Amino acid sequence: MQSLSKTSWSAKKQSQKLADGGADKLDVWSIFTPANMPPDAINLGQGFMNWNPPEWVRDASAKAMNSDVMSNHYSHPRGRPRLLKAISSHYSPQFENLTRENRQLRPEEIVVTAGANEGMYAALLAFLNKGDEVICIEPFFDQYLASIIFNGGKPVYVPLHPPEAPEDGSFVKRTGADWKLDLKEFDAAFTDKTKVVIINTPHNPSGKVFSPEELTAIAEICTKHDVLVLADEVYDCLTFDGTEHVRIAALPGMWERTLTVGSAGKSFAATGWRIGWLIGPAELTLATLQASTRIIFCTNSPLQEAVAEGLELANEKRFFPDQIEAYQERRDVLCSYFEQLGLSFTLPQGSYFVLVDMSKVKVPEGYDFPEVVKGRGRDFETCWFMAQELKVVGIPPSEFYCREHLQFGEKFARFAFCKDLDTLHAAGKRLLGLKKYIQ
Amino acid sequence: MQSLSKTSWSAKKQSQKLADGGADKLDVWSIFTPANMPPDAINLGQGFMNWNPPEWVRDASAKAMNSDVMSNHYSHPRGRPRLLKAISSHYSPQFENLTRENRQLRPEEIVVTAGANEGMYAALLAFLNKGDEVICIEPFFDQYLASIIFNGGKPVYVPLHPPEAPEDGSFVKRTGADWKLDLKEFDAAFTDKTKVVIINTPHNPSGKVFSPEELTAIAEICTKHDVLVLADEVYDCLTFDGTEHVRIAALPGMWERTLTVGSAGKSFAATGWRIGWLIGPAELTLATLQASTRIIFCTNSPLQEAVAEGLELANEKRFFPDQIEAYQERRDVLCSYFEQLGLSFTLPQGSYFVLVDMSKVKVPEGYDFPEVVKGRGRDFETCWFMAQELKVVGIPPSEFYCREHLQFGEKFARFAFCKDLDTLHAAGKRLLGLKKYIQ
Ligand SMILES: Cc1ncc(COP(=O)(O)O)c(C=O)c1O
Ligand SMILES: Cc1ncc(COP(=O)(O)O)c(C=O)c1O
Repeated sequence: MQSLSKTSWSAKKQSQKLADGGADKLDVWSIFTPANMPPDAINLGQGFMNWNPPEWVRDASAKAMNSDVMSNHYSHPRGRPRLLKAISSHYSPQFENLTRENRQLRPEEIVVTAGANEGMYAALLAFLNKGDEVICIEPFFDQYLASIIFNGGKPVYVPLHPPEAPEDGSFVKRTGADWKLDLKEFDAAFTDKTKVVIINTPHNPSGKVFSPEELTAIAEICTKHDVLVLADEVYDCLTFDGTEHVRIAALPGMWERTLTVGSAGKSFAATGWRIGWLIGPAELTLATLQASTRIIFCTNSPLQEAVAEGLELANEKRFFPDQIEAYQERRDVLCSYFEQLGLSFTLPQGSYFVLVDMSKVKVPEGYDFPEVVKGRGRDFETCWFMAQELKVVGIPPSEFYCREHLQFGEKFARFAFCKDLDTLHAAGKRLLGLKKYIQ
Repeated sequence: MQSLSKTSWSAKKQSQKLADGGADKLDVWSIFTPANMPPDAINLGQGFMNWNPPEWVRDASAKAMNSDVMSNHYSHPRGRPRLLKAISSHYSPQFENLTRENRQLRPEEIVVTAGANEGMYAALLAFLNKGDEVICIEPFFDQYLASIIFNGGKPVYVPLHPPEAPEDGSFVKRTGADWKLDLKEFDAAFTDKTKVVIINTPHNPSGKVFSPEELTAIAEICTKHDVLVLADEVYDCLTFDGTEHVRIAALPGMWERTLTVGSAGKSFAATGWRIGWLIGPAELTLATLQASTRIIFCTNSPLQEAVAEGLELANEKRFFPDQIEAYQERRDVLCSYFEQLGLSFTLPQGSYFVLVDMSKVKVPEGYDFPEVVKGRGRDFETCWFMAQELKVVGIPPSEFYCREHLQFGEKFARFAFCKDLDTLHAAGKRLLGLKKYIQ
C-alpha cells in the first residue's frame, strides 16, 4: 500500500523563474495578511474597498446571467461586444488624439482582460523577448517585477525622488507633485535593449499624478528611444482637487506606441470581479489579445456585462464625480490624523493611498519581531509594530522597490483610504496612540 | 497636428514567442466563428452549452454579491475559503489515496484558477525551464501548445492511434476505448529533458476515457522517468454508460507527482465564469499558486462563491448523475444521425464531443473556399463546406495535432453535443443532407 510521501516531486525542480521573479519568497501581502494580524485590527493595507460596487452595477450581473445564456459562457477573447462598445463610448472623449480625428475607439483597439494585472502580464508576454529591458519608475506596483521576469525581460529601475524632509524633522505636508522624476536619470536608463517603459499615473504608492509637462518630457524621451509604453492608469477616475489626469497615449507621437491600462476593480469598487482592459492601436492590442487568449482564453462573462452597464450609465448617474468627492473626504479625514501626529505625509493627487513618513516613530527597543519580519527593513518593523500594538495595518513600501533600493522605501508606510469614513476615523484615533512613540 | 500613423510600433517587434506558439496565426475558433458562418447555422463547434448553469447556482452569485462585501473584492490568490472547503468535501472521496489515509484534501493542496486554462498555464510557468520537454498525447486540446512554448518548454508528441477503418468503407461504431496509446511509443518519447506529461482523460476530442489498466501503465512509465503529470480531468463528471473515471493521481506513486485539473465551466455549464482548480501535494500547488498570483493575482470572487454553492449542494440535488443522464441522451441523439448517414464515429465514453469519420463525404469539385481555409487540410474544407451548405458547424480536428501531424486529423470532424435535444435533432436533420455527397 502506497502512503503519501512527505516530499513531493516539486521541491527541487520548480522553474528558476519563480525565484528570479521573487515569487518564491513570502510577499508583503502574505506577511500582513489578516491571519497574522490581531483579529480586531483595522486593515488599511491592501487596496480594496470596504463597500460594495453600486447596486445598479451588481444587479446588472444577475440580470445578464438570468436573461441571456451567452452571458454565462465563453466570451470572445477580446471581450464581449457590449463591453467593448461601452469602453469605446466612455473612453473615446478622453483621448484627445481621437477627438481631434472626430472618431471613437474601434473594437479592435480594445482588449478586455482578467483585471489590469493579467492585461499587463499579457502585454509583456506579447512584446518581450529574452533580455529585453523594461524601465520601471520606483516605487512601483509590486506585480510588475514578476510579470517582466517571468516573460524573459529585465527590469531597469529609475527612482521617483521623494520630497526632501526638513532636517529638523518638522511637519510638512507635500503633494504628489513634490515627487520628482529626474529626466536625465530617466534618459540615461535607456539602452539598445530597452523595449518597454511602464508609466503609472495616478501613481501607486505615492499618489502622484504626473503633470502634462512631465508627461510631455517623458513622451519625448520614449519616442526618441522608440519604445513601447505601458500606461498603467488604473486610478484614472480617482484624481483630487481638480488635478487633471493626462493620458500619455494622447500626446503627440504616443498613440502608436502606447497601451493604456484600465481596471473596473478600481473604477467601480469591484476589485474581486477581475475585469480590466487595454486600449491602443489595433496591432498592439492584437498581439496582447493573442497572448491573453492563451493564458486565460477569455475574461469572465457575467461581470463583463455588469461593468458594461456601469460604464453605460456612469455619466447619467454622475457616478465618477460623486465618487471622487467621497474619496477626497476620506483622504482628508485620514490625513488629518497624521497632521495631528505631526507625521509628514504626501497628500495624494490621485489613487487611494497615502505615504506617511514614519522616521520619527521609534519602536521600543527589544520589541519582539517574528522571523518573517526580521531583516526585511525598518518599514516592515514599523508596520508590524503598528499593526500589533495600535491595531492599524499599513503596508511597508520597501516592497515597491527593487532589492537593491529597498532602503529608499524604509522610512514610509502606505495607508489605503478606500474605506468608509467611520473606519478611517476609528483607524485615525488608534493611530493617535503613536504619539508616545514619536520623539 | 499629429495624426494617427498607419503603422504602429508593434508590427516588427512583437515577441518571437507568439509565432513560436502558433498564436499569431488565425486559429480554428476565429475561422469557424459565427461571423464567418451563415446566420442560421447551428453551432456544434466550440464546446459551450446552449443552456444556463442551474438557477440555484446562478442565484448564489447574486446572493454573495449582495450579502457580503468581500465577495466583490480581491480573494486570497489561492481561492476563497468557502470554495476551497467545497472542493475538498466534493473531491476527497474521489481520491483513493486520501480515503485510504482517511483524510480530506487540505486547503494547501488546492489552488483556484481563472478556468482550467489559466491553471494549466500557471502550472507550466511554475515548472518549466527553458528547453524542458512536455509530452502531449495527440490529438490534444489546442491551448496546450502555446502554454508550453510561451513558458519556454518544448512540446513532444505521442499519438493516440485511432481505430482502423474497414477497407471497404463500411459503417463501424467504435468507442473511445478503441483509441490506443502505444506504450512503447510513449516510453520512447521520454528524454533526459522531459519534465512534464499531460494526460487528458476523459479526452477531448476523442471522447476516450483511459482505462485503469492504461493509466496504471502510464503511471509506471511516468514514475520511472520521474516526471510531473498534469492530469487534465475537466470532463471528470461527464462519463457515460457507467464508464469509470480513474484519477491518475490516486494510483500508486502518483499523488506526489500529479496536479489534477478541474473546471467549473464544464461541471456546471458555466464556461464563461472562468473558475477552475488544481489539486495536488502542497509543494506543487504552492509553486502553481506563486505563478498564478503574478499572472492574474486572484480568480473572480462572486462566481467562486456560486461554484462553492454548486459543489456543496450537488449531491443533495443529484446534480451530476442527472446531468450525465441528460448528456448521454444528447450524445445518442446526435450519433443516431451519423449512423443513419453511415458515417463511422467514435461513441464517446466521456466529454461532450464526438469525432466522426468524414472520409466518405466528397465536397463537389471546384467548390469555392475562402483564403483562410485553403491549404489548411481536408478537414478544414469539409467543415467549411458543411457549415456553408448544410448549416451545421463542426470543428476540423487537425487543429489538435502538431504541424507535422496535421494529416492524422484530416479525416475527422468534431461535433459538440453540449446542446439541447431540439438543437441536436435540428442539426442532425440538416446533416442528413450530406447523403448526396457520400459515395
Ligand atoms: C498601479 C496598479 N496597477 C494595477 C493594479 C491591478 O489592478 P487589477 O485589480 O485590475 O488587476 C493595481 C492594483 O492594486 C495597481 O495599484
Ligand atoms: C481538455 C480541456 N482542457 C481544458 C479546457 C479549458 O477549460 P476552462 O474553460 O475551465 O478553462 C478545455 C475546454 O475546452 C478542454 O477541452
